[in-house]
Amino acid sequence: MSGVWGNKIKLSIFGESHGKAIGIVIDGLKSGIEIDIDYIKNEMERRAPGASPLSTPRKETDKFDILSGYFNGRTTGTPLSAIILNNNTRSRDYEKTAGLLRPGHADFTGSIRYRGFNDYRGGGHFSGRITAPLVFAGAICKKILEDKGILIGSHIKSIGAIEDGSCFDPVSISKESILKLSKSKFPVLDEVKGKDMEESILKIKEEGDSVGGVIETVVVNLPPGIGNPFFDSVESSISHLLFSIPAVKGVEFGEGFNIASMRGSEANDEYYISEQSTMKTYTNNNGGVLGGITNGMPVIFRTAIKPTPSIAKTQKTVDIKKKQNTFLKIEGRHDPCIVPRAVPVVEAVAAIGILNLMEY
Amino acid sequence: MSGVWGNKIKLSIFGESHGKAIGIVIDGLKSGIEIDIDYIKNEMERRAPGASPLSTPRKETDKFDILSGYFNGRTTGTPLSAIILNNNTRSRDYEKTAGLLRPGHADFTGSIRYRGFNDYRGGGHFSGRITAPLVFAGAICKKILEDKGILIGSHIKSIGAIEDGSCFDPVSISKESILKLSKSKFPVLDEVKGKDMEESILKIKEEGDSVGGVIETVVVNLPPGIGNPFFDSVESSISHLLFSIPAVKGVEFGEGFNIASMRGSEANDEYYISEQSTMKTYTNNNGGVLGGITNGMPVIFRTAIKPTPSIAKTQKTVDIKKKQNTFLKIEGRHDPCIVPRAVPVVEAVAAIGILNLMEY
Amino acid sequence: MSGVWGNKIKLSIFGESHGKAIGIVIDGLKSGIEIDIDYIKNEMERRAPGASPLSTPRKETDKFDILSGYFNGRTTGTPLSAIILNNNTRSRDYEKTAGLLRPGHADFTGSIRYRGFNDYRGGGHFSGRITAPLVFAGAICKKILEDKGILIGSHIKSIGAIEDGSCFDPVSISKESILKLSKSKFPVLDEVKGKDMEESILKIKEEGDSVGGVIETVVVNLPPGIGNPFFDSVESSISHLLFSIPAVKGVEFGEGFNIASMRGSEANDEYYISEQSTMKTYTNNNGGVLGGITNGMPVIFRTAIKPTPSIAKTQKTVDIKKKQNTFLKIEGRHDPCIVPRAVPVVEAVAAIGILNLMEY
Amino acid sequence: MSGVWGNKIKLSIFGESHGKAIGIVIDGLKSGIEIDIDYIKNEMERRAPGASPLSTPRKETDKFDILSGYFNGRTTGTPLSAIILNNNTRSRDYEKTAGLLRPGHADFTGSIRYRGFNDYRGGGHFSGRITAPLVFAGAICKKILEDKGILIGSHIKSIGAIEDGSCFDPVSISKESILKLSKSKFPVLDEVKGKDMEESILKIKEEGDSVGGVIETVVVNLPPGIGNPFFDSVESSISHLLFSIPAVKGVEFGEGFNIASMRGSEANDEYYISEQSTMKTYTNNNGGVLGGITNGMPVIFRTAIKPTPSIAKTQKTVDIKKKQNTFLKIEGRHDPCIVPRAVPVVEAVAAIGILNLMEY
Repeated sequence: MSGVWGNKIKLSIFGESHGKAIGIVIDGLKSGIEIDIDYIKNEMERRAPGASPLSTPRKETDKFDILSGYFNGRTTGTPLSAIILNNNTRSRDYEKTAGLLRPGHADFTGSIRYRGFNDYRGGGHFSGRITAPLVFAGAICKKILEDKGILIGSHIKSIGAIEDGSCFDPVSISKESILKLSKSKFPVLDEVKGKDMEESILKIKEEGDSVGGVIETVVVNLPPGIGNPFFDSVESSISHLLFSIPAVKGVEFGEGFNIASMRGSEANDEYYISEQSTMKTYTNNNGGVLGGITNGMPVIFRTAIKPTPSIAKTQKTVDIKKKQNTFLKIEGRHDPCIVPRAVPVVEAVAAIGILNLMEY
Repeated sequence: MSGVWGNKIKLSIFGESHGKAIGIVIDGLKSGIEIDIDYIKNEMERRAPGASPLSTPRKETDKFDILSGYFNGRTTGTPLSAIILNNNTRSRDYEKTAGLLRPGHADFTGSIRYRGFNDYRGGGHFSGRITAPLVFAGAICKKILEDKGILIGSHIKSIGAIEDGSCFDPVSISKESILKLSKSKFPVLDEVKGKDMEESILKIKEEGDSVGGVIETVVVNLPPGIGNPFFDSVESSISHLLFSIPAVKGVEFGEGFNIASMRGSEANDEYYISEQSTMKTYTNNNGGVLGGITNGMPVIFRTAIKPTPSIAKTQKTVDIKKKQNTFLKIEGRHDPCIVPRAVPVVEAVAAIGILNLMEY
Repeated sequence: MSGVWGNKIKLSIFGESHGKAIGIVIDGLKSGIEIDIDYIKNEMERRAPGASPLSTPRKETDKFDILSGYFNGRTTGTPLSAIILNNNTRSRDYEKTAGLLRPGHADFTGSIRYRGFNDYRGGGHFSGRITAPLVFAGAICKKILEDKGILIGSHIKSIGAIEDGSCFDPVSISKESILKLSKSKFPVLDEVKGKDMEESILKIKEEGDSVGGVIETVVVNLPPGIGNPFFDSVESSISHLLFSIPAVKGVEFGEGFNIASMRGSEANDEYYISEQSTMKTYTNNNGGVLGGITNGMPVIFRTAIKPTPSIAKTQKTVDIKKKQNTFLKIEGRHDPCIVPRAVPVVEAVAAIGILNLMEY
Repeated sequence: MSGVWGNKIKLSIFGESHGKAIGIVIDGLKSGIEIDIDYIKNEMERRAPGASPLSTPRKETDKFDILSGYFNGRTTGTPLSAIILNNNTRSRDYEKTAGLLRPGHADFTGSIRYRGFNDYRGGGHFSGRITAPLVFAGAICKKILEDKGILIGSHIKSIGAIEDGSCFDPVSISKESILKLSKSKFPVLDEVKGKDMEESILKIKEEGDSVGGVIETVVVNLPPGIGNPFFDSVESSISHLLFSIPAVKGVEFGEGFNIASMRGSEANDEYYISEQSTMKTYTNNNGGVLGGITNGMPVIFRTAIKPTPSIAKTQKTVDIKKKQNTFLKIEGRHDPCIVPRAVPVVEAVAAIGILNLMEY
């Protein structure tokens, strides 16, 4: 089972990169919610390739078609489905290497899982393209949250070994900085470091290689009391969805792996009542979540994205048909770094994961 | 909703630390599986406190009672339930601080989530004690996997700033080293470093403080083809359960956050066919999972555990009844470091998460 | 998978008739709901055998123990679990017939399904006794509904060929008649017919035989708008649970099978606005549900209960061990008619099925 | 939540009658299954209106488009989605009556449930048209079962007060009779009675009225052991889906409501071993299911379909905008009897409900 997730909100995702269309069904949305088509388009453009020299020159039209659950500009409350037709596919790029396992991709694992019957072209159901419908669904959820004052924002914390100049201040992130980041195609807190990162990516691209990175995301103004202990905790919901995104290899909340090296006296976030009579903590090492439930402080998490597996350099591999060791040189147009494009996907699933736990 | 998880295997967990009993129902187990009671007891003893000077002196009898789904030593195939009666509770330890929010705990978040009606004594449903039924369920799953040759083992990678002497070799971990680790109350690969860690914990305990750590876990001999792309990937299933464990703040697979700083040419795990005609990779930066599906290499992941929130040092906090800032000094008998006790819990949920994706 | 059901409210049922205990976990109940223990006990007594010459003389103590999710008389909002210990079991009644398939029971089907590993004693997980935890859970839900003015009531429409004197008036059932029925051990609208039915049961019992019946149930004061089209319709939710009760072989809503012989002009329930400005219909052939959603009129349904399979008369059967045709004479203490005891079970699942679709 | 159902096989249905498209996603199908497009088309033609003078003259093109999960003629194992574009819609037929509640339809209930935001045109998500995607999904499942020798067949047991000449012989139904029925647009066992029924429908149509009926369905060659006690019983799974079909008001298995009037000695199905060493029963009053699990005998059930609510006769109703009692005369092209068209829908959901419980 790969395609169904959720409880209050249920998602059904489908599609192969070179099939007729990819899409998603979102069930459980309240009726009467205004759908902001431009907002959705904007989120999807953040994800689409071909928009920058940093990414693949493949142009994917992410033009979506809402098929149901949408009437007179609002949700009907019945299942809302949308599809994106697959155009701009160059199957022949993939034919040359049929039978050769591309390292870092799901060619081998997918062929075993689906007993050889999966649509392997362009990555099939494993393709990063299938994140487009996720962004569609996430945009709807993100807008619902935004209209309640709950904002989600991210900056690229690192590309390869290059770190952004700073991180989010875990106790306080301004609405303005989040909005500013969301407008950027390469969102960073330190523009100079941002330029270093972009140059690094271009250089790595010329080398025929790729690089990964870490995205730091924050959710502000979430009221306390959202989530559950155990199986539907905020961290469980969000990480389940994050690890569903191809290329994600790590997720941490608050101080994350750092917190493991701390003392309790350092790590504990001590409470105080603010002047506006709100419950706050002096620090926020727990990333706004305690016992799986929000405490009103910013929810902060980090997602580790591995370098794009498709590189131009020659690699050792196996020909699965001939069952022998061989070499592979991937051609075609590939992303040297998917991190900037992954930002809206990460935010999308965070929005979905959170809305699934809320009344609204 | 906090208590229900799963698909092929469904878990329903219940219980408060100071209620009558805690327990779990496991639905979906195949019929006819021999239940090894001693094996389960052993796993649960690894979790139980009071067994070592490193942990709390509270003795929790984790004596479990199987109520159903078990007949003539085997699973019946019907829902298998077990409970653990709550003894050894000292409610008065918790009364002195009623109304005072303990930093790092779920007192505040739980009171909002449950609108003040939760059983707050001893952490209630948020208590680490509720991991005991998880270990019970996980032990059954772990034994099923073991009987198929699939082993799960862990070492404590770090306590505070002290690192274990080495890590698992991601391409090859011997059965013997896993069995050796499973017999140890403080499993490490380097005994000297282990001693340093234990001394550090005792020292921190005397200071009335606590410390966190990182657990590195490996699953060997998993056949390729287990898992799914998107919503039921191996990483999603395992991380969902890991983040359900109280105190977990980070999860990474393979090289995890490290992979984000690599090039594709470094990170990609190149394939080759071994002498025994098995598909292997020279490296294993992806931690045995590609496209959410196992590739036959060891599945490796790391879990970050935060330091125990209950420390003896005085902390700033809020009195939620009087709505004013105040101080808190927690008394009672608390773990300075729960990492060694978290090891069997981490292994338990890994076993459950994996078995939920498999035919057996 | 047999034991888990639900969406907003999730049930996990477990237990075998001759195992240690039977029980249920209810997850998703709101916090702060007052639990009326006497109310629950009352509902469970309606189900318990041994209370009347009409049923089996076996006394089953349905004394329940709430283990979690319950504190200071109210729900905590965390999973609420309860168990009922199994006493009063006479395993030797079942030993004599081990290997002989009892017609109408699940001996054969259960042995295939569970590959011979099921606990066959006393029906195991197929025993009608496992409805006791359902009544427990249903009592909690029924009380929640009652406190909102939503009442559930039933009368025995027929025992064998004997019909109750009348049926519910589908457009209007008084609160008083429902309360009166709930107090009766043998709820009928026509006391004379009720006596006929009871005499008939006693006579059939003397003959060593059994008889079935039909229960008609009504839910009044449900607001309109509860339910969904397609997969989570009111009829789907309720029938899914009704058909989970052993011995149920038919479910119909409104005019049910009768409606199939009607014209549209007869069947359609025409609308009007009442003097109190409420939307009503002149007739209620649709049983209060249209498009899977309540319309405010009483929800009415009927459940067909088959005769108890355990009869004293000699029956032809198969010895499954010897693989040969043979005869069977069941001994022991068995219900000649379980219909009166099934009434609270039917009402319990109706309450659960409805609450699962509501906000409260 | 209306659109998601299932466990091993998960369905997500979506679409409004006058929206862009209706469709379904099926997740959990095994990979490598050959999809017989003609078989699916055939099943869908059985459902489509406009094919007979008995049904509405509206021609609905049920031309479907498979968007994913399908490659080189076989299932890939990833989510399989299909859509049907909505053509042939005459919105103006529905505009005249906007605001007037059509008796027997979901206009009122849907407007409350979706707070006035539902797409009301042509019934929206409540339209019988949404059964087309169900037939698509069911056809795939039905074919899988057929290839395993498991056949599903139905006859129209009654239209109004006219009964078919006979019923299925519950202990033995031939493959030939099932195949013969599946080829008929008006499947009956007694052709003469069939003609009576058809004439009756035409007469009722001229009167501007409608009529309901009962469908009797059988599933043959199901091996014993399929199903579960309690919540995922065969009857629960099938009835849950049957009651999801608009217009269904009753479901019974085996002797159904009849069994309630029987004695145990009559109702019990006694076992014997046949000459071919198969376990059989002399009678089959339980409809092939005991304890929620199949016993190898034919599974038989009956579905009650109410008369089509849309009739030409003038009806009393309410104008929901003006909040006053009024009259309504529905125009447009409507089915006098949907029973023949409901047959493939009933068989579709039976196939899905059964396959969801099986290994294959």
